[in-house]
Amino acid sequence: MNTHSIPHVVIIGAGFAGLEAARGLAKARVRITLIDQHNHHLFQPLLYQVAIAGLLPSQIAQPIRTIFRKQKNLTFQMGMVSAIDVEQKYVKLNGSIIAYDYLVTAVGGRTNFFGFADVEKYGYQLKDLETAVNTRNQLLRMFEQASHTADVEKRKALLTFVIVGGGPTGVETAGALAELISHVMKKDYPRLNLNEAQVVLLEAGNSLIGFYPAELRTATLKLLQAKNVNVRLNSKLESFNGQFVRLADGAEIETQTLIWTAGIKAVEVLENLNAEKASGGRIRIAPTLQLPGHPEAFVIGDAAFLLDEQERPLPMISTVAIQQGAAAAKNILRLINRQALEPFHYKDPGLLATIGRNAAVARIFGISFSGYIAWAIWVFLHIYRIIGFRNRILVLFNWAWDYVFYDNQVRLITKE
Amino acid sequence: MNTHSIPHVVIIGAGFAGLEAARGLAKARVRITLIDQHNHHLFQPLLYQVAIAGLLPSQIAQPIRTIFRKQKNLTFQMGMVSAIDVEQKYVKLNGSIIAYDYLVTAVGGRTNFFGFADVEKYGYQLKDLETAVNTRNQLLRMFEQASHTADVEKRKALLTFVIVGGGPTGVETAGALAELISHVMKKDYPRLNLNEAQVVLLEAGNSLIGFYPAELRTATLKLLQAKNVNVRLNSKLESFNGQFVRLADGAEIETQTLIWTAGIKAVEVLENLNAEKASGGRIRIAPTLQLPGHPEAFVIGDAAFLLDEQERPLPMISTVAIQQGAAAAKNILRLINRQALEPFHYKDPGLLATIGRNAAVARIFGISFSGYIAWAIWVFLHIYRIIGFRNRILVLFNWAWDYVFYDNQVRLITKE
Repeated sequence: MNTHSIPHVVIIGAGFAGLEAARGLAKARVRITLIDQHNHHLFQPLLYQVAIAGLLPSQIAQPIRTIFRKQKNLTFQMGMVSAIDVEQKYVKLNGSIIAYDYLVTAVGGRTNFFGFADVEKYGYQLKDLETAVNTRNQLLRMFEQASHTADVEKRKALLTFVIVGGGPTGVETAGALAELISHVMKKDYPRLNLNEAQVVLLEAGNSLIGFYPAELRTATLKLLQAKNVNVRLNSKLESFNGQFVRLADGAEIETQTLIWTAGIKAVEVLENLNAEKASGGRIRIAPTLQLPGHPEAFVIGDAAFLLDEQERPLPMISTVAIQQGAAAAKNILRLINRQALEPFHYKDPGLLATIGRNAAVARIFGISFSGYIAWAIWVFLHIYRIIGFRNRILVLFNWAWDYVFYDNQVRLITKE
Repeated sequence: MNTHSIPHVVIIGAGFAGLEAARGLAKARVRITLIDQHNHHLFQPLLYQVAIAGLLPSQIAQPIRTIFRKQKNLTFQMGMVSAIDVEQKYVKLNGSIIAYDYLVTAVGGRTNFFGFADVEKYGYQLKDLETAVNTRNQLLRMFEQASHTADVEKRKALLTFVIVGGGPTGVETAGALAELISHVMKKDYPRLNLNEAQVVLLEAGNSLIGFYPAELRTATLKLLQAKNVNVRLNSKLESFNGQFVRLADGAEIETQTLIWTAGIKAVEVLENLNAEKASGGRIRIAPTLQLPGHPEAFVIGDAAFLLDEQERPLPMISTVAIQQGAAAAKNILRLINRQALEPFHYKDPGLLATIGRNAAVARIFGISFSGYIAWAIWVFLHIYRIIGFRNRILVLFNWAWDYVFYDNQVRLITKE
């Protein structure tokens, strides 16, 4: 590194981790190049709301250039990084080479189908705006088809929705979908008997939202069952051919709609990175968030694998990503100023998941809540954390409207 | 027709004409089947706003089932009518046959490229939500590409946007795009010299918005030129290969973005209809809006061709479609009640086009306006006419926000 010039920091990914790293360097004497394959940051915790027509894609996305309008030391480049060379210290983007002095890899993850090629082919997922909109289109199409299907069994199959994975995304999607059916679709399809519809939530393990405390796992199960979600624990998927879900115990469910929320793995560009990897291809990093052997290269967010003080892997959630982004920015400043780096300590701000109208589970300051109060906290925090004042107003308006009128924003089927 | 049973009215198309026909029969003793290939009605006059990121797709679309929740005599079916048999009195939909007693064909039009296969392949259009979103993606992509293009000539080509057609859509798109560049993109791309950007409006004839009075045509030209739109009258397109627009006079414009707004023709299903056709394949109808020889079949909206009292063809605009929808419903009721039908008379409510912030042209009650007052009328009328109270509030909020902050809703690039 030429110590006379301004150091160049390349940040790959404008998710929670990358965004926070970029902000942490706002006042530093560095040049930042922020790279993302999309031109917008996505508020991923609400992506499932797009799938159930509760929010619009634009309400949980914010153009990256708008976010950084006032940060003069940052340049945004849209594109997909095709290679990272940590030896020569450059990344390849849109056919060009971008050299860096410091690198922050915050590329997130992609859906892990664990080798289920048939699920990848016929199933739906919630990874970005496109997959969420595709899922919304599929859900709405099934109601349209059911509305002109005379055969009862066929109609029931069309109106069966299987969600795989009992983590927060699976639980929130199942709860919200059950409510969409009972509150909104009932009015849109007065001639359909919506008792024929069912939402099935499959979980391979013996409880939902595994990393939550026991009392919240139980509360979640009860809240979902009260909303008529058919929760099947200890249910392993065996195959899905677009018509039938087969479980390991031999049971079959006839459906055209399987939403897979059961795993995340590393993106392609990390597969070629010569580094030690954990399950799912996540990069094992030092407690300082550095790539071992490459002090100028940091890996953070879902792409990184790190154990906490109790030797448990840090979960792939937004609060970890945000804190790591801030910590990586500080450590880069320490490197520049030739100070000792500090290890990352995750401060758990609490857990929160919603199971539909008036129902959520939360653990905050060590106290577990469920029901209405947890739900109110969930609504407040999610609106507060959405980026952009305009989006906050729009989401608040939306949810208030839905709450009062039992309506959902836009049940639009768009072409794919 | 079995006079003892309730008559079955099939309406194809839930655009302005079909919607109004369905509403006109709300209190009648008929069964209505309304068919559309989309599950939503689209407020087409604002579609260009989606292309310039001024509005969201959902703000100008409303689910058809929501619109007709309270109309108990109506069933909606989503799908594409593959054939209309006016002899046997049925339509084919999703592989089924739907027999009718009365038919209202309100299928609208599609883009007429007048044989320019290259323009159809490489150009963009504004016909439905998908094509408008594709256009938006293209516009935003060009700015992203320009932002990392070092060569001045290449950059200028990326930032050149050619709109073909000087009708209301072309004029409104050109004005709004020029403002997007000068007010919003300037802030998003502080390192780009946006004097290198240009909006070109090509019109083959010798004036813009041909069917408006002369003083408004002149005012429109001046307003566009004041916004730096390069208006080229008497300019005939010869070809477009995705890189260069060639004009009939030999001139060339280097651009990757051509937006075609220059024509509408009949949709496929009408091509096979055995009926007399006008230019563009539009169906020549009787003054009662009936298909000649088939008193129970009505054709209305953009799909129909009818001359007014001065022997001029009625324009393909929403006000004509709405009035024809209402008139067709009344004539169907007269047929049922064995009364004499009445011919359609178009009542011109005025003309209105906007050319961006604070600038519009209008003719209302025979008086021509331009500038701020016309613009304020335009804003008010368009918000008022959007279907759904929620959408009205959202569009109002949006436009107020954009007006105050010189911001545009969502400059999102979504995958296609």
